[in-house]
Amino acid sequence: MDARVSADAGFDLRAWSAQRLALVEKCLEGWVVADAPAGLGEAMRYAVLDGGKRLRPLLVLAASEAVRGNEHAAMRAACAAELIHAYSLVHDDMPCMDNDILRRGKPTVHVKFGQAQALLAGDALQALAFEILAPEGDSVPAATQAALCRLLARAAGHEGMAGGQAIDLASVGHALTEEQLRRMHKLKTGALLQGSVMMGAACGAPSAQAHEALARYGAAMGLAFQVVDDILDVTADSATLGKTAGKDAAQDKPTYVSLLGLERSRAHAQELLALAVDALAASGLPDTRALHALAMMVVNRDN
Amino acid sequence: MDARVSADAGFDLRAWSAQRLALVEKCLEGWVVADAPAGLGEAMRYAVLDGGKRLRPLLVLAASEAVRGNEHAAMRAACAAELIHAYSLVHDDMPCMDNDILRRGKPTVHVKFGQAQALLAGDALQALAFEILAPEGDSVPAATQAALCRLLARAAGHEGMAGGQAIDLASVGHALTEEQLRRMHKLKTGALLQGSVMMGAACGAPSAQAHEALARYGAAMGLAFQVVDDILDVTADSATLGKTAGKDAAQDKPTYVSLLGLERSRAHAQELLALAVDALAASGLPDTRALHALAMMVVNRDN
Repeated sequence: MDARVSADAGFDLRAWSAQRLALVEKCLEGWVVADAPAGLGEAMRYAVLDGGKRLRPLLVLAASEAVRGNEHAAMRAACAAELIHAYSLVHDDMPCMDNDILRRGKPTVHVKFGQAQALLAGDALQALAFEILAPEGDSVPAATQAALCRLLARAAGHEGMAGGQAIDLASVGHALTEEQLRRMHKLKTGALLQGSVMMGAACGAPSAQAHEALARYGAAMGLAFQVVDDILDVTADSATLGKTAGKDAAQDKPTYVSLLGLERSRAHAQELLALAVDALAASGLPDTRALHALAMMVVNRDN
Repeated sequence: MDARVSADAGFDLRAWSAQRLALVEKCLEGWVVADAPAGLGEAMRYAVLDGGKRLRPLLVLAASEAVRGNEHAAMRAACAAELIHAYSLVHDDMPCMDNDILRRGKPTVHVKFGQAQALLAGDALQALAFEILAPEGDSVPAATQAALCRLLARAAGHEGMAGGQAIDLASVGHALTEEQLRRMHKLKTGALLQGSVMMGAACGAPSAQAHEALARYGAAMGLAFQVVDDILDVTADSATLGKTAGKDAAQDKPTYVSLLGLERSRAHAQELLALAVDALAASGLPDTRALHALAMMVVNRDN
C-alpha cells in the first residue's frame, strides 16, 4: 500500500489542527507574558507568537489523544515543546551560529532586539518550558510532570537537540557518511520531534506495545521531517519557506540532497513515511488518524 | 548581637563543605559527560568542573540537611543549581554580553571553544540541570522531582536570573534608585541563591514557619551576596577574584558601591547578614549551623 494514499478519508487534519492550535496559541499568549523585565518579555513573545507550523504541539496532542492522555498535561507539554523549538531558532539564527536575518518572513530576534536580548530570550524560553511542565496544584499528576521534564530535557540537551547542533557546527565543509548525517539529524531535529510524540504518550498510560510503536513512529517521522527540509532548501524559494532558501549549500553543510541527490532523497522520505505508518498500525491503538495525517503532512509539505 | 561573632564555635564550615563538595564534584563528573557529540561535552565540562565556590550546591545541601531532606534529591538539586549557574556564566561572558575573557583565572568558554560552542554548551547545561532533577526510578519521589523543576525553572527564567540579566543590560549607563538596583540584583543573582535554599527545603517537608523563614534567609543572603560582589569589584584585584576586577565601573554599570558608597555598602551587607541570621533563629529548625556559617562566609569573603 502506498503510504501517500492510505489516509483515512474521513479525517480532516486541517479542522483537527485548527481547533487545537487555537487553544495552543491562547495558552502560549498567557504563559509567555509581555511584562517580563526590561523588554525581555517582548523579545520572548516575538520569538514564539504568531508564527510557525506548530508541528511539535500537534504531535504532542495527537499522541496524547491516541493514548487518551491527561488533557491539561498534554496542553502544557505541547506548549513546552514549542518553547524549546522557538528558543533553538533564536539561538541558531544568531551571528555566531547560522547568522540568519529572516525567519517566518520576519527579521530574526537578534536583528530586531539585539544579540544580548536574543541570547537571554532564548535562555528564558528554555526555562519557561520547564516551568510550564511543573505547575503547582494537582491538574497534572506529579509523576506525569516529572516524566515530561525528563523527556523534554533529554530531547533538548546534549544527547538531543543541542548535541545535534554541535555536530552540525563541526560538519560544515566536511563530507559525512549517510550514517553520520542520520545521527546528526536524529539529534538536531529528530530528538525534539520524537520527544514531542513521547511526551504526548507520557500524558497517558500506553501499553508497552503502543509505547514502542510510538517511539518508532516518532523516530521515522522525525528523520523524514529533516530529509524533506533538506529537499525544500533546494527546491523551494525563500518566500514559500519563510526563511532563507539555499542556505545549506551556501554554507557548505552536508544534507541528504548533497549526499543522495534529489530523487533518492525523495524516495527516502517516502520510505520513512511508510515506516511511520507501519508503526502506527502495529501500535494496537484504536485511533491514530491524527498521527497518521501529521506524518503525511510532514512528508508532503511544501514549506 | 553582632552577626559576625554569633557563629557556633563548634561548627567547622571548612570541614563540612569539603566533605559535601567531594561528593558534588564526583556527581558533576559523572553527569556532565565528556562524550557528548562534537566537542560539546568537553566545553560543558570546562565550564563546570574544577572551579567556583560551589555556593549554590552548599546552600541546597545545608537547607536540605536543616529540614532532614531526601539526600538523593538534595545532591541532584545541588548539582542542578550549579549547572544553571555555570551556564549563566558561559553566556554572560560572551562578546554580545559582558565580553569577558577571564573566569576563575582561566580563559572563558567562548575564548577557548569559540562562540557557537559556548552558546550550545550553555544551552545544553541548562537542559542537563532539569534532566538531573527528573531521574527515572524511585530514588527521588515524583512530587519532589516536580517541585524541584518548578523552583529551578522559576529561579532561572524571566522572573529570575534571565530577567535580572535583562535589567542589567538595560541599566548600563543609567542611574538606578536603590529600589531598582535591589530588584535587578534580587532577580539576577538572588533568585538562584534563594532558589537553591528553597530547593533544599523542598527535599524535605518543612513546617510553614520553617519554610517562610528559609525564604527570608535566602532573600537576605542572596542580596547580601550581590552587595559584597559589588564591593569586591572595587576593592579586590583580578588575581584574588579569579575574574576581571573593576569591570562594573569600566562598563558603567550601577552597583551598590556607586549608589551608596563603600562604607554604607559594607554596613548594608552586615544588615542583610543580620536579617538572614534572624530568619534562621525564627525557623524553629533544630540545626541551622551550616546555613548560618554559609551566610557569614558570603558576607565576609574576599573573593
